[in-house]
Amino acid sequence: MTITLYDLAGAEDDRRFSPFCWRAKMALAHKSLPVEEVPWRFTEKDVIEFTEQGRVPVIVDGGNSGKAVWDSWAIAEYLDDAYPENLLFTEQSGKASTYFLKCWVERVVHPGIVRQVLMDIHNHLHEKDKDYFRTSREKVFGMALEDVVASAEESLPQFRASLEPMRAVLGRYAFMGGDEPAFADHIAFGPFAWARAISERKLLEAEDPIFAWRERMLDLYGGYARSSPGYES
Amino acid sequence: MTITLYDLAGAEDDRRFSPFCWRAKMALAHKSLPVEEVPWRFTEKDVIEFTEQGRVPVIVDGGNSGKAVWDSWAIAEYLDDAYPENLLFTEQSGKASTYFLKCWVERVVHPGIVRQVLMDIHNHLHEKDKDYFRTSREKVFGMALEDVVASAEESLPQFRASLEPMRAVLGRYAFMGGDEPAFADHIAFGPFAWARAISERKLLEAEDPIFAWRERMLDLYGGYARSSPGYES
Repeated sequence: MTITLYDLAGAEDDRRFSPFCWRAKMALAHKSLPVEEVPWRFTEKDVIEFTEQGRVPVIVDGGNSGKAVWDSWAIAEYLDDAYPENLLFTEQSGKASTYFLKCWVERVVHPGIVRQVLMDIHNHLHEKDKDYFRTSREKVFGMALEDVVASAEESLPQFRASLEPMRAVLGRYAFMGGDEPAFADHIAFGPFAWARAISERKLLEAEDPIFAWRERMLDLYGGYARSSPGYES
Repeated sequence: MTITLYDLAGAEDDRRFSPFCWRAKMALAHKSLPVEEVPWRFTEKDVIEFTEQGRVPVIVDGGNSGKAVWDSWAIAEYLDDAYPENLLFTEQSGKASTYFLKCWVERVVHPGIVRQVLMDIHNHLHEKDKDYFRTSREKVFGMALEDVVASAEESLPQFRASLEPMRAVLGRYAFMGGDEPAFADHIAFGPFAWARAISERKLLEAEDPIFAWRERMLDLYGGYARSSPGYES
């Protein structure tokens, strides 16, 4: 029985860029579970209406009476409960302190990357999503998409410096979760997979330990993330 | 058999302010181990010469052939190995993801608090430490101590905003380590215990979830931290 994953897609069906979906995709790959990935666009709210909310990732577990779970954190908790092999929350990377990492990633890494690639996201969207995206994001930022990324180049050093706590961990451990990958890695990798899918911008310098970790993440699970369309930098 | 802890002290023997020592103090209290705290000053390098390094915390475990351990992280690892009751690294807060929190605290919270209280630290030091402190810190900052804190008031909102990932965790969990306190809490509490010992500055607003957590930390282990001299804010 297969798990169906509704996964945000761009103009092409196989261009997948949501950092939250990437968490779920990597978590499913971590457990070697059979998955059918369904490309989904922002404006297809009706397709996931059964969740009574409008966001992906959503999974429907055919192996568990078609149980539906949404929100990437809830999906990880569900997967560890339903499929306890290859845990996502590990002895080295428990739930509460992984939750701290999640909060940091969402408040530091996601906004930092948005300032670099927001126009690239827009340019890779399906035509039917572009108006929705521009309108909703310009409301959030209070300015035109073009203005959000106007200082991308000059803010890049500050973005790289903001990653210092992550860099320090990767100076000690191979993965954010410790000696082995864990959900902590999927969370931290999400925004880099997101940027890779839609932007040529070189976010990390090649000698950065975070760059080497990102390479390891791309290679994990038989090169699962690397096989997804994106730009190499 | 008692564990001896060399603990940074100010002008008065019982004014203890090192955030790194506070980690070790809270960890020892967490395990209810018998401790003799020895007040130590920056300029007493000779007292801990047996460690071949010049910093506290240092513990000497009388219950383990006088084994000496230094560096707050190494002390926590040692204590969990030697005294496995009341673990510091827990199922919810494992070693690798706690290490991420540590790196974040040292890169965000410590520098943020230093900009608020650096002169207060200086003013509470033992006379014999003041020259050493001023000279070494002014070298690090490249400016007079007075200039480091000149923008304290105006940078306070930015400092509070920088704590957002911590605030988000405390919206979900009672402690940074999850449902129960863990070494993650001792690490995050360190800089607040530091500031409390030497400064009247109100770092947190009373309605901040971090303020409530700080109160819980002061109450832990029979009010151990609260009984230490400091300013209430």
